[in-house]
Amino acid sequence: MKCLFEGEEEIGSPNLKPFIARHQRALACDTVVMSDTRMLGPDRPAITYALRGALSLELEVAGAPSDLHSGNYGGALHNPLQALCEIIGKLQSADGRILVPGFYGRVRPWHRQEREYMARVGPRNQEILQHAGTQRGWGELGYTLYERTTIRPALNVTGITGGHQGAGGKSIVPARAVAKIDIRLVPDQDPQEIERLFRAHFCRLTPFTVRSQARSFFRTKPALVDRKHPALRAAFDAYRRGFGSSPVFVRSGGSIPVVNEFQELLGAPTVLMGFALPDDRIHAPNEKFHLPNFFKGIETCIYFLREVARTLEQ
Amino acid sequence: MKCLFEGEEEIGSPNLKPFIARHQRALACDTVVMSDTRMLGPDRPAITYALRGALSLELEVAGAPSDLHSGNYGGALHNPLQALCEIIGKLQSADGRILVPGFYGRVRPWHRQEREYMARVGPRNQEILQHAGTQRGWGELGYTLYERTTIRPALNVTGITGGHQGAGGKSIVPARAVAKIDIRLVPDQDPQEIERLFRAHFCRLTPFTVRSQARSFFRTKPALVDRKHPALRAAFDAYRRGFGSSPVFVRSGGSIPVVNEFQELLGAPTVLMGFALPDDRIHAPNEKFHLPNFFKGIETCIYFLREVARTLEQ
Repeated sequence: MKCLFEGEEEIGSPNLKPFIARHQRALACDTVVMSDTRMLGPDRPAITYALRGALSLELEVAGAPSDLHSGNYGGALHNPLQALCEIIGKLQSADGRILVPGFYGRVRPWHRQEREYMARVGPRNQEILQHAGTQRGWGELGYTLYERTTIRPALNVTGITGGHQGAGGKSIVPARAVAKIDIRLVPDQDPQEIERLFRAHFCRLTPFTVRSQARSFFRTKPALVDRKHPALRAAFDAYRRGFGSSPVFVRSGGSIPVVNEFQELLGAPTVLMGFALPDDRIHAPNEKFHLPNFFKGIETCIYFLREVARTLEQ
Repeated sequence: MKCLFEGEEEIGSPNLKPFIARHQRALACDTVVMSDTRMLGPDRPAITYALRGALSLELEVAGAPSDLHSGNYGGALHNPLQALCEIIGKLQSADGRILVPGFYGRVRPWHRQEREYMARVGPRNQEILQHAGTQRGWGELGYTLYERTTIRPALNVTGITGGHQGAGGKSIVPARAVAKIDIRLVPDQDPQEIERLFRAHFCRLTPFTVRSQARSFFRTKPALVDRKHPALRAAFDAYRRGFGSSPVFVRSGGSIPVVNEFQELLGAPTVLMGFALPDDRIHAPNEKFHLPNFFKGIETCIYFLREVARTLEQ
């Protein structure tokens, strides 16, 4: 058993791929196991077999070299925050269809059987909304909320900064405005191709009255793990013993860059054995971890190691 | 001569109106003089005779009660920053025409002579762009940049805050987004009526997938000073002596709430004798004041006090 620790997953694991490539022989293995995914509920274990890809970008729109008095210049210059809003408003339709030309070109349509399996074992709309703490869903027509967050791509504005940030008002036309964009990708979208399409569209949407530029932080390919791989059978049995009920196979809307890289560089599938819960407030203030899952997770891992050794030996 | 000092102009002078009302007798005067406006250039003195009104607001759009993981929820919930951008994108047309129904109902059309006078003495488009440090104008067709910033209203986004504000990316659907809006008004628009129209339109533009609310910071009426008032003649003579050249009468796009209140409560016109320059970076980092204007301004004020006393005595 080889242990590999890394702390850069949230910024796209930029150093892990070259590290794996450099130590390919030392890291050689039959299967990878990683704990960074969710179950469906405290007593509803789940094994993730699909992850979305990701493209993380920052968009900047700039006007005058300095903030200007909004009384003296308001109405005569294109406000960069206004222009940024106009651009972002045109990236998606009202129901979340992404309007970048060519964006859906490689999105894989799934068989009816696959969608039926998802509907049978995955979270219901009402459950997803309840975990989000809201009553209102949104997004692409013709898909459940579970499908919208797993087999369909999504574009999210994760932050905007521009102009006055404090209390009260301030009479300025800000010099610049910045938005952070997080695009989730699905098989068989390629992050580099999507970045090229997105940048071209962003240029087209930028009015001539302002300047704009895009910077990309990271790109991650979508990942799929073969549900029939013996290591996943071993994980299935381990969850059943650790939690006392059979796990289901689910798709995640999140992204784990290294899953693809383990597959490509080591030829090893990754068993995603995570123990988080949908209401853990991941990436939000006051994040939590359900303690019983910590102890049941330890047991599950013990069962898994014994089971996977036996399975792979055969 | 009575001196009145106040330090709340930038937040709409909320305490000055009740103060004037309470001390109406003590503050009684023939004319008010105030130094808070600009000239056209170092050797081009100007007396401001018109100010735009203002309405300062904060718009908030809220979704889930907490930030959510954008992988797990992206595509299934309406992102408040996205919704805010969509709303702001619909407040104005591409050329800055404000799309709030009824917004232009009371905007006064000006006589040809007035616009010709403005064209003769006011700043040229090229000059306004040069002071802003940019090459590209923007705004309502059929009006010069000087007109767009003085006799036409304007809507500016002075700040947006939402989601991740630091370096790099963060995978969240933010819980809320806030925009600061600065609307400049012209005669005969009434800030209270405009606020009512704006709030109704903002409600209409808010999709049912998010919640929104608007808060107003302050409201200021547009102001006009009679160019033929004897006190303005006295100011004209004083500038000519202080700066060695005749001043012109200009409109400002800015707002000074108390000008209307002095008129209403004391029946006194305000002589706007300011000495700032268009490139002073007002409201921006590294603001400056041109020192020669400070000394010439002192002289101009001395001439003015002598002149206005003589004029008003007659």
